[in-house]
Amino acid sequence: MKIPVVRQILSANDQIAMENRAAFDAAGVFVLNLMASPGAGKTSVILATVDRLPQGVRAGVVEGDVASSIDADTVAARGLPVVQINTGGSCHLDAPMIHSALPHLPLNELDLLFIENVGNLICPADFALGSNLNVVIASVPEGHDKPYKYPGMFAAATVVLVNKFDLQEVFDFDLDYFRRGVAMVNPDAPVMPVSCRSGAGMDTWVAWLVQRVARRERGKD
Amino acid sequence: MKIPVVRQILSANDQIAMENRAAFDAAGVFVLNLMASPGAGKTSVILATVDRLPQGVRAGVVEGDVASSIDADTVAARGLPVVQINTGGSCHLDAPMIHSALPHLPLNELDLLFIENVGNLICPADFALGSNLNVVIASVPEGHDKPYKYPGMFAAATVVLVNKFDLQEVFDFDLDYFRRGVAMVNPDAPVMPVSCRSGAGMDTWVAWLVQRVARRERGKD
Repeated sequence: MKIPVVRQILSANDQIAMENRAAFDAAGVFVLNLMASPGAGKTSVILATVDRLPQGVRAGVVEGDVASSIDADTVAARGLPVVQINTGGSCHLDAPMIHSALPHLPLNELDLLFIENVGNLICPADFALGSNLNVVIASVPEGHDKPYKYPGMFAAATVVLVNKFDLQEVFDFDLDYFRRGVAMVNPDAPVMPVSCRSGAGMDTWVAWLVQRVARRERGKD
Repeated sequence: MKIPVVRQILSANDQIAMENRAAFDAAGVFVLNLMASPGAGKTSVILATVDRLPQGVRAGVVEGDVASSIDADTVAARGLPVVQINTGGSCHLDAPMIHSALPHLPLNELDLLFIENVGNLICPADFALGSNLNVVIASVPEGHDKPYKYPGMFAAATVVLVNKFDLQEVFDFDLDYFRRGVAMVNPDAPVMPVSCRSGAGMDTWVAWLVQRVARRERGKD
């Protein structure tokens, strides 16, 4: 007779992700984990989103990169509190890295925290950080076939943004084909075309985000 | 007294990569490992290169993807022998995967083999496959800061192509800044702007490639 062991054993990463989440909840901070290919526009989405937040909403940023502080410098120049994590070769952020960043963040003075993951459409999806939302950012120049080729990432998304949408025609980007690919692995995730450059779609995305934050505050998330 | 062990122990991957290389050499096939972010244009570069090869040069393709056979179908539609490797979640190709593909390739009928790695600017750089060249393909929409953020990949390159260069102005892409970033980690790698769409730069790249193949045939590589 086989005895099935049904108790879920949390991985070390998931355990620390839960601790991160508890720290965020205690401080009243809503946290987004932004995942995308290199150059899809994660930093641009953060800045364009912050520009459109309702007055009084205070945002901070964690920048994850293999190397350099280019993105953190860009964010700091906009006056936002930011912590840079250099993974030194690792292809994703993990919960312990975020845990180490916590003491360097003014959590009690923040309402929203954007965690910009390492540019990679595969590995980051496997590591919970303790965020409330997984935001996957695709971009038009990458092509409309990405959900079919990288299903794990799109399955992990709470919401999918399609950035650089002002260039849809230049790249013959087929939004319906893209949407069907996302729906195959993740029928519940909304797909929102945006352009950080033109601003198109950003109001829809920010309104959706503000609603999600409000729902969490009412205790529904 | 400590006795230093100076003998280089090859990893299992490197050992199999050497076996792959021996099989390629025996068949007289010159092999390219193409690495890039998702959507940088690896498949397009393969097809645009094949279109410009001197008459009589016979090319084959190995397509690496997390999922789907989209790229292999595209390549097969052009009449090229192609093997699809689905990594099933893994973020890179490795030497054993290529080894398993060998029996499915008509090696003795090929002069050039293009291995299209999984779209990822980090992990593939760490796994030798047995290729003669590492071709790293950046693309203009990703931005000119990629060599600074992903130094490991650019350090692993034999040659760097900058694809979608017809859109340089649309994206304010600073080629000099990009070149300086590559040179910091890899001063010897040539950096060649190309556009698969317009064809610009492709002749320079193909001429360089043909010269490298000829050099190998003269026993210098």
